[in-house]
Amino acid sequence: VLYKDAGVDIDAMDAVKRVIGRLCRSTYTPEVLSDVGLFGSLFKVPAMRDPVLVASCDSVGTKTAIARMMHRYDTVGVDIVNHSVNDILTLGAKPLFFLDFIAHSDMKPETIVEVVKGLGKACRANGCALVGGETAMMPDVYKPGDFELAGFIVGAVERSRVVDAKRLAPGDICVGIPSWGLHTNGYSLARRVLFRKAGLTVKSKVKGLVGTLGDALLRPHRSYLREVYPLLARVKAIAHITGGGFYDNIKRLLPFEISCIIKKQNWRPPRIFRLIQELGNVPDEEMYRTFNMGMGMVLLAAAGQVQPILRSIRGSRVIGKVVRGTYGSIVI
Amino acid sequence: VLYKDAGVDIDAMDAVKRVIGRLCRSTYTPEVLSDVGLFGSLFKVPAMRDPVLVASCDSVGTKTAIARMMHRYDTVGVDIVNHSVNDILTLGAKPLFFLDFIAHSDMKPETIVEVVKGLGKACRANGCALVGGETAMMPDVYKPGDFELAGFIVGAVERSRVVDAKRLAPGDICVGIPSWGLHTNGYSLARRVLFRKAGLTVKSKVKGLVGTLGDALLRPHRSYLREVYPLLARVKAIAHITGGGFYDNIKRLLPFEISCIIKKQNWRPPRIFRLIQELGNVPDEEMYRTFNMGMGMVLLAAAGQVQPILRSIRGSRVIGKVVRGTYGSIVI
Repeated sequence: VLYKDAGVDIDAMDAVKRVIGRLCRSTYTPEVLSDVGLFGSLFKVPAMRDPVLVASCDSVGTKTAIARMMHRYDTVGVDIVNHSVNDILTLGAKPLFFLDFIAHSDMKPETIVEVVKGLGKACRANGCALVGGETAMMPDVYKPGDFELAGFIVGAVERSRVVDAKRLAPGDICVGIPSWGLHTNGYSLARRVLFRKAGLTVKSKVKGLVGTLGDALLRPHRSYLREVYPLLARVKAIAHITGGGFYDNIKRLLPFEISCIIKKQNWRPPRIFRLIQELGNVPDEEMYRTFNMGMGMVLLAAAGQVQPILRSIRGSRVIGKVVRGTYGSIVI
Repeated sequence: VLYKDAGVDIDAMDAVKRVIGRLCRSTYTPEVLSDVGLFGSLFKVPAMRDPVLVASCDSVGTKTAIARMMHRYDTVGVDIVNHSVNDILTLGAKPLFFLDFIAHSDMKPETIVEVVKGLGKACRANGCALVGGETAMMPDVYKPGDFELAGFIVGAVERSRVVDAKRLAPGDICVGIPSWGLHTNGYSLARRVLFRKAGLTVKSKVKGLVGTLGDALLRPHRSYLREVYPLLARVKAIAHITGGGFYDNIKRLLPFEISCIIKKQNWRPPRIFRLIQELGNVPDEEMYRTFNMGMGMVLLAAAGQVQPILRSIRGSRVIGKVVRGTYGSIVI
């Protein structure tokens, strides 16, 4: 018995690793001190007075199933990088480096390269170095064709500039910034409603959607770094609207006796969300607890800061307010 | 349709998250500046003159299948933490913090907690803070019962103390340090040979193995931090013997025109490796390319440093030498 017979082709993986190495190098910043191929990646801490590292881990979840159905693998890498960049941005951090984790049963080497192309593109766009990762071929664990993509990001922020929600006070305002689609959350529900219940496919054309249903579902997660980073001094807290929607992602930020009311009449969710809701007969609360409903990031700021924020970020709008109370974040 | 109907139970996951939060806090070091539950984890860079971060990502691979067969979930966390600690140790780094990624289809909350208990235990033992992670429930991607555990570690080292293999020279010596078993590599091959080909089970008793076959296969990955860290000034390079065995893991370190010869007669592989080889009729080269064969870490050092190293580390022994040549690392 050879290892290859056991379903693990080390030579094929080596070839992929070389291409991935070149893609990684295309993202390197001056702080990267090592080349690919060592047991770890060396990264110089940027010059700061009192640097704080901000780390986060996430996965694209079952959005990979949409990529598989569409035979399009170069966008999920953008999803996981941008998701991660947004997560640490909520604390004021700029990205430093990123590592990916791909697990699969039988992905073709070319397909893995497509995934890493997306990672590299998004890393370059965010000024983040793709310094490493791991590709695990696990034929017994994953169903054929399925794969998993997770990511780890580390960023840095001056300790004095960490975004700290403890200054939130009644009267503060919630500003929503548009998303590009579902981003990376709610795909289990979306697929169940659209494909299993309603019988649609990724090729279906639906009135009001640009392109096919698959195109709409695969639209990448947006990075808010460029728009939001210059405004950090104006905000008191930032929520990235991921799994848990407008409930959990805002609630986790709120100090004691501070609550938040999001008013859904303040914006109309894009067609893809209304489609899921209509076809699945999904209650409003479930929708706003699962999806970003068209607003992927919420900035919480003093009322006096709202106008400059609205002027700076295209499509942003007031969607709610901070109040006294202990009920967390609710959508009415 | 509710999200719960789609197979994702947010409430159950919230309960797990609270327990995981407590386990994480038990590992916190003074550098951890945030509590659990934010979008990212804050970590103060330790005071150093010129700190270099060392990052690595890995997974336990299909060792999770052994855990599932044994109904024992508290060791794979130890595996991934110790694997990661060893990876960055090869560059001279001490661990700072760790994040985990668990993906599964239908794991019970108690089972996830067992996995995180293992992570917490190993993090405490290595002085590493478990600052976060992600648990993804993906019923459509994973087969029932299967799960994946990946980890991401960041450590730090003074720039002047980065272990850099470029000083390796002919005449240097390879010192092997015993492993505790298969560690986290080669499980696809091991399972195929032992279970599918030879018809054994995790409950089988095999002469020469302590406990059952499952016990032997599940023995955790050893952390070499405590033994090796004090000796870093004595070594020129360190190889962590993971997938790729004594070939790829040493070769990746070697400077131009420097090669390495490992002599297998220098030690006798433990019973579990000999069992796999015998039952699977696996060629020697394949064994030494896939498994650690009883030596999980190799220190490469000048001849004059060998005696102090051998005296410091129980069970360590000379297993090979550095020579002039361009053939990489070979086992003879």
